[in-house]
Order: sequence, then structure tokens, then C-alpha cells
Amino acid sequence: MSLIVQKYGGTSVANPERINAVADRVKRFVDKGHKVVVVVSAMSGETNKLLQFINDVNKKPDPRESDVVLSTGEQVTIGLTALAIQARGVKAKSYTGAQVKILTDNAHSKARIINIGTENIRKDLDNGYVLVIAGFQGADEQGNITTLGRGGSDTTAVAIAAALGADECQIYTDVNGIYTTDPRVVSNARKLKSITFEEMLEMASLGSKVLQIRSVEFAGKYKVNLRVLSSFEEDGEGTIITYEESHKMEDPIISGIAFNRDEAKVTVESIPDKPGIAYQILGPIAEQNIDVDMIIQNIGHDGLNDFTFTVNKTELDKTIEILEKMKDHLGAKTIIGDSNIAKLSLVGVGMKSHVGVASKMFRTLSEEGINISTISTSEIKISILIEEKSLDAAVQSLHKAFNLDQ
Amino acid sequence: MSLIVQKYGGTSVANPERINAVADRVKRFVDKGHKVVVVVSAMSGETNKLLQFINDVNKKPDPRESDVVLSTGEQVTIGLTALAIQARGVKAKSYTGAQVKILTDNAHSKARIINIGTENIRKDLDNGYVLVIAGFQGADEQGNITTLGRGGSDTTAVAIAAALGADECQIYTDVNGIYTTDPRVVSNARKLKSITFEEMLEMASLGSKVLQIRSVEFAGKYKVNLRVLSSFEEDGEGTIITYEESHKMEDPIISGIAFNRDEAKVTVESIPDKPGIAYQILGPIAEQNIDVDMIIQNIGHDGLNDFTFTVNKTELDKTIEILEKMKDHLGAKTIIGDSNIAKLSLVGVGMKSHVGVASKMFRTLSEEGINISTISTSEIKISILIEEKSLDAAVQSLHKAFNLDQ
Repeated sequence: MSLIVQKYGGTSVANPERINAVADRVKRFVDKGHKVVVVVSAMSGETNKLLQFINDVNKKPDPRESDVVLSTGEQVTIGLTALAIQARGVKAKSYTGAQVKILTDNAHSKARIINIGTENIRKDLDNGYVLVIAGFQGADEQGNITTLGRGGSDTTAVAIAAALGADECQIYTDVNGIYTTDPRVVSNARKLKSITFEEMLEMASLGSKVLQIRSVEFAGKYKVNLRVLSSFEEDGEGTIITYEESHKMEDPIISGIAFNRDEAKVTVESIPDKPGIAYQILGPIAEQNIDVDMIIQNIGHDGLNDFTFTVNKTELDKTIEILEKMKDHLGAKTIIGDSNIAKLSLVGVGMKSHVGVASKMFRTLSEEGINISTISTSEIKISILIEEKSLDAAVQSLHKAFNLDQ
Repeated sequence: MSLIVQKYGGTSVANPERINAVADRVKRFVDKGHKVVVVVSAMSGETNKLLQFINDVNKKPDPRESDVVLSTGEQVTIGLTALAIQARGVKAKSYTGAQVKILTDNAHSKARIINIGTENIRKDLDNGYVLVIAGFQGADEQGNITTLGRGGSDTTAVAIAAALGADECQIYTDVNGIYTTDPRVVSNARKLKSITFEEMLEMASLGSKVLQIRSVEFAGKYKVNLRVLSSFEEDGEGTIITYEESHKMEDPIISGIAFNRDEAKVTVESIPDKPGIAYQILGPIAEQNIDVDMIIQNIGHDGLNDFTFTVNKTELDKTIEILEKMKDHLGAKTIIGDSNIAKLSLVGVGMKSHVGVASKMFRTLSEEGINISTISTSEIKISILIEEKSLDAAVQSLHKAFNLDQ
């Protein structure tokens, strides 16, 4: 008998029929003797409908109130899912984030989990209930409803699995596992049977939409066994995310190619090259809750340097606005924003012990006539920024060059 | 400066445009220096949509889980309404029932309010916030979400007004006040400027849908000043519900005619006429949470009696089923259910000091050839059951006979 946490995303609970299918699956696990905790998202489309309502009444909505509205999406799903499970003769009980006592900070719309109260839910589990818990939400110390940001249901599932010491956390999505790259760009992209936690973390952070990055961080920190599966297949094995680097000799050097069209590049040109400048630039950005992804700074010369980073395209204007106000204070020459870029990354634990990955990557792109504007590397990945219009060609040529379809 | 509680029903918050209109009205009151607490229902149509979802996953839904789903309707509205008010430069903050600490019993879907915590909301009021509170819902001692039953938002509003000692509780609906009877049945029905609490209580209990009966009971118990107004008119005066019988000599004897097509009649025939029989019949009905309205028992003869009561038409089958099981134990001859009936009541405080109201009523109906099956009276009302198909003619003839259009 195992304790399994299953997370179902919006498309997996899109309507009553899909919710009934989820209940059928839960019953199959219960019938095998497992204890099951289900974490669900809002029915797909609901969150967008609610966002439209919000926009119709307030163009600059207070995040506290937006969270009150948006958190109802998951609340509908937990009730319906518990009812569907009960209809199959299985005991079930729903919990909102606040009812579980998923305590978060008060950064509305981007809240982080501080603690998960397990007393109530453990008692119900011991009494034979399937628990159905709202993803994406919690409450702060004052009882204000918070949301973890879109996609945060994965994080809820992993955090619950960690808090309960679950044997496995299964993330059900509309894809049946992790692929070497996006099959919509490379038709012979291959499903991976397993991927290391580190690789998955890089893939997630680099734009692979299958898992939300914070959930992968959480899983890594608390050693939660994660599995990604399709809710549309009855018996898929999905992809396991492993914690040991048990790579065999014949394992490929590269596990996958991730890419992201959502980022924009910001360069602060010709600023005095002195200690503290990075903080002076990024501090005010972070204060506005703007997430920064890549950060690149090369050596300076003549006492000046260029500082480049990427933000989400939707936050480019706000970022530029903040920097323009600080320009004189920073002593910078110009602030340049560019949203016609894409990020591409090669990811693979095998890369650690193999030289020549970078040179093969750069040669391949050069042969395709693709110019690389920015490079940044870690032990298990190489990330580059290129023109957005060259992205598909770049992914396809690298997928082939590194034999990822084999 | 007054403290005003305003309650807006589903049609008054049916879409973002209507919610914006509510926010405009709230701002007008704030601009006049009033403190305002807003209680809102779900956007009209939402509750039915959610009920359909529930029906799609479970035909006999657990009321705890139904409440989790249904309570989201109001939660969406409080967030949107707070945002709309904020968009007009007025400080506003939303509260779910659980956040206010509207403590209820655990009779899911029909919960009753036990206590209202006012500490948090009073602090926010003192700090200049308009509070937007979810109607229809609360939480029990274990933190389970409960609902007060459909229409319960009125009760929430009155209970909040009582707890805060508000100067007035305004119920905004899609009608502009209380009428002598339903204008759809009698075209020259007249809007009343005021009505006594007792009369309103009778009108509400007798099927006038403008106010929910429990809210009127609450208002009476805690002496809350109630006013019914239209949310579609900017400057309507509505109808005040008063607590003093300040009727002048020329006041009419009858204030209004209420009627109800939703009830069914149940008769337990020929049961032994002994103490405790009424409890033996109604106890098991009440245990199943079936509301009983009229109860009529005439004198018995030959040691036998007939016992008649009314329930909601939707609960007739269940009621008959319960009684059939007990028939032998009760020693009853037959159980008869009849759903082709309607209840009609004349209501008026003036009736107390005037004889002849009943005889005028019965004569009028007799002249119309309408047969009365059952009669029950109180100090300020006379209720009868008649065939449903005769209802319109009965209401019209009585409205005319008692000069209610004057």
C-alpha cells in the first residue's frame, strides 16, 4: 500500500465528463489498496473567464481581491471531484488551501508556501478518505486568500507530497511525459523514460511547460518522487524524475532541448564597472515582483560594462520604465529592450563529463547561419539567446545533430 | 453619518456592468458620508450552472461538497464588487463568510447562523473601508463551508446589520418595493410605502418572494430597520418595514394578498385521536430536514382524526414515502398527497380590530365559484388552500373586493 498524490491540471478536469474520468482513475488506485490525495486545478477556461470579469471591473486590480476571485476556480473543482469520487462508492472529502492550512506569505498572486498543516488531512487519510485539495492557493497568517500564481497547482501537489511523505507524486497533464524537445517543433522528438531532477529543473526553468519550475525545486529539496503522465491514457508510464545520476556509459550526452519564446532581453549599456552595480539594477526590478531569468555580464573595459538580463515579454515595458528612471543615478548610457528574441538551451547531465558539447552546438548553428547574441552556461546546460524567427530551425538542427531522436 | 448595510441579489450583480452600477451606488452613499457594508449574492445564473455541474457528477450529492461548490458563486462576486468599488477610488475589502467568521451550525445547505464575529470587520470599517461580504454562506466550528440555503443572502445582510448595529439594512432587488399582491397576477397592484414587520413576516412566509422569511424573522428579533428597493432605479424610496403599529384610522384593513404555488398538501386520514400524534407524524419529517408550512387539524370524532399539512412540492414524494413506512405504526387509514393546490393568504394588521374580514373573503370566493379545501388563521392573516387553477381568479377578485388598488 502506497500513499500517492495525484495532481490533475485544468484540461484533465475541464468538464464533468473529464472529472468523472479522474474519479474512475482514483477509484482504480484505491481498489489496488493505495491511499490517494488528489490536487486539482480550475476547470480549463475558468481562470480566463474570471480574469476577463476582473478586467471588466478594474484595469489595475488589487491582487488581494483578484486572488479571492481566482481561487474559486479550484474550489469548484475540489467539490465536484469529491462528489464524483463519492458517486463511485469511495469516501472523499474536499479541502480548500485555507482549510488544509497551506500557510503562505502575503505576496498575492505569487505567494510562496511557508508551511502545510497536515493534522486534519492525515486524520482523514487514516479514516479512509480520498482527499481532494485545491491547488494554486493558500492563506496568509491573517486568513487572506492567496494564490501561488498560474501553474502553482504542481507546487501544491509536490508540497503536499513532501509534507505527507508520499511515495510518489503523479502529475497528470495533457502530454504523456517529458520529450527531448517540443514535438510541435521537432516531429520525431522522443519521450524520455526518465530524467534526472537537475535536468528537469533546467528544462522547466528553460520554458518546458510540462512542470512548473517551483514544483521541481520543491521536489528536489524534499526528495519527492515525481512522475509526469497523461490523464488521457489509462496505462501510460509517463516519465519519472529521478534523484540519482545512474547514467550508464551509453546514456546520451544531451537529454533535451528546451526553449522559450516568452522572454525579452534588457541591456543596460555602459555603466560604471564597480561593485554593487548588479544589485542596484536588479533590486528595484525585484521589488516590483518582476521575475528575472538569465543574467549575463561579461568583463568590462575602460571602467565601463554592459549588463544584460531577461524578463517576461509582458513585463518588458514596466522594466524599461523602472530603469529609465534610474538611468542617471546608475550612470548608464542607454537602456535597450528587445522582445524579438528566443532562448534555447541544451540540457544534459552527461554534458558534465564531455567536452565539445558547446563547440558542436555553436558549429551546428553557424552552419545554419543562425547568430547567437548571448551565451550563458551551467554544469548541465548551455543557454543562448537568438532571434525569435530562427528558433524552429535552431531546435530542429540541434535535435538532429545530437541524435536526440535515437 | 449612518452605517448602512446594502444587500444586492443575483440580478443586481448579474454581470460586470451591473456590478459597476452597484459600485456607483456604493460610492454615492460613501460620498454622502455614510459607512457602507455590502452583502452580495452569486451572479444570477451561476448557482444554476454549478448545480448542473454537481448533477453531472453525482445524483445524490453530499451536501458538504455541494456547499463547497456553491459558495464559490458569492466569492466571485465579492472580489469583483470590491475591485469595482476600488476602481472608483474608494477603499474596499472583501470577506467570505468564513473570513468574517459567520459561525453556523453544520446543517449543510440549510445552515443557521449562530454567531457573527465583528472584530475584524469593525476594524476595517473604522479604517474607512467599504466591506463586501459574501451572502448565503458561513463556516461551522470545524471550518467546513456551509450555505444558508438559496435566498440566504438576505439573512446574511440582516444578521450583519444586527451584529454591527447598522442604522438601516437595504435589500436591493429587481422589484422596487412590496406590493399589495403580485403585479403579474393583478395589474393594478399597488406599491406599499410601508408595511409592519408582522405583516411582512406573514407575506414572506406566505410566498412573497421579495424577502426571504428568515431574514425577516432576524430583522424582527434584532429590530433591524429594513428597506426593500430596486437596484435598477437610482432614487427609489422602496418600501420600509416598520416595527410600530402606527396605523391611522383610515389605514386599510388588509395590506396585501400573498400566494404560493410551490406547496403540496398531505393528509394523514383516520388516525387515532390521541396525544402525541402530531409529533409522531411530523418528527420523522423534520428529521429529514423537510420544511412543513401549514398544519391543520380539526376536531376528531369517533376517536379518529385527519391531520393535514403542506410541504414544498419537490418534497412531496419523499414525505409520502416516509409516511407510508410509518402508516401501520401510526394506525392511519390512508396517506393522501395533492400537489394541485395553491395557498392564498390575506394579510393585514388592521384585521385584528375588524370583524368580518373572513366572511367577506369567503363570500367573494364563493361568488367566483371557488372552493376552499382548508382554512387556517392567525391574528393578522387568513390562509386558505384552493385548487391551483383557481388561484389567479381568487387573487384578482379579492384584490378588488378589499380595494387594494386604492
